[in-house]
Amino acid sequence: MSTTDEYVSNNEVYAATFSGPLPLAPHRRLAIVTCMDARMNVYAMLGLCEGDAHVLRNAGGVVSEDTIRSLTISQRLLGTRKIMLIHHTDCGMLTFTDDEFKRQIEEETGIRPSWAPEAFSRLEDDVRQSIRRIEVAPSIPYTKSIRGFIFDVATGRLKEVE
Amino acid sequence: MSTTDEYVSNNEVYAATFSGPLPLAPHRRLAIVTCMDARMNVYAMLGLCEGDAHVLRNAGGVVSEDTIRSLTISQRLLGTRKIMLIHHTDCGMLTFTDDEFKRQIEEETGIRPSWAPEAFSRLEDDVRQSIRRIEVAPSIPYTKSIRGFIFDVATGRLKEVE
Repeated sequence: MSTTDEYVSNNEVYAATFSGPLPLAPHRRLAIVTCMDARMNVYAMLGLCEGDAHVLRNAGGVVSEDTIRSLTISQRLLGTRKIMLIHHTDCGMLTFTDDEFKRQIEEETGIRPSWAPEAFSRLEDDVRQSIRRIEVAPSIPYTKSIRGFIFDVATGRLKEVE
Repeated sequence: MSTTDEYVSNNEVYAATFSGPLPLAPHRRLAIVTCMDARMNVYAMLGLCEGDAHVLRNAGGVVSEDTIRSLTISQRLLGTRKIMLIHHTDCGMLTFTDDEFKRQIEEETGIRPSWAPEAFSRLEDDVRQSIRRIEVAPSIPYTKSIRGFIFDVATGRLKEVE
């Protein structure tokens, strides 16, 4: 059985005891922005319930234009008011540089990406950078309740970035 | 206690029995692209274990430039080879149009977003559109194993898009 078929089969077990639907708008009026990293089971690590919060994830948990788009929709159409940003230790984004990665892709495919890979070298600084990007986005109305954290993949523990 | 403080407190319970760290590269070599919708507890609904798969989420689960960036990093630096795309019923992206949403933001803030909100009107068509965007991205090397699904928020069940 392929990996994907295995997950589809797991989903049948999940659906057997599922009770829905919950409302569309997040119950706790929160949006969480974090990394795609496989080790972060966001619902379990925060004790989130289904329906509580939007969860946005990409490589690094960086605040990209797509993150601004998603947060704008989250706040303006679906009523969220607070944001948690979560980076994590041992992140893949700490292992390369944008210039080097773009050069590798250009060498192999002939096409240099027009986008920035968004590697970073200091976790806490990038959390602060991400907060600032949200604060200056003109389309995001609620920017007073943004808090930044780092998840430690060795201990499972969150630490707030001051 | 604030919502965020409550989740930080929940995290202490999670960390108390946490055993880590797992390896950085996803064990099952899979990346999952889906919506930020609060009702989708991705690990539970697929029976994913921590460390199995990258999870990318944004408003709609659309394939944006940021999704291409993240999938490029996922495959080239972290070894994933397969992609699952998951949209869902009752999605917020079905409730508005790009033009109308951009006009509202311009009227309220004076600034018209330079990005497309990416509303869509047909779930299955947008899953196929998302697959095509990945297939033509020059920076993504492995595009043969992409499968699309729709998650039903009423039943908890996945249905494959042919």
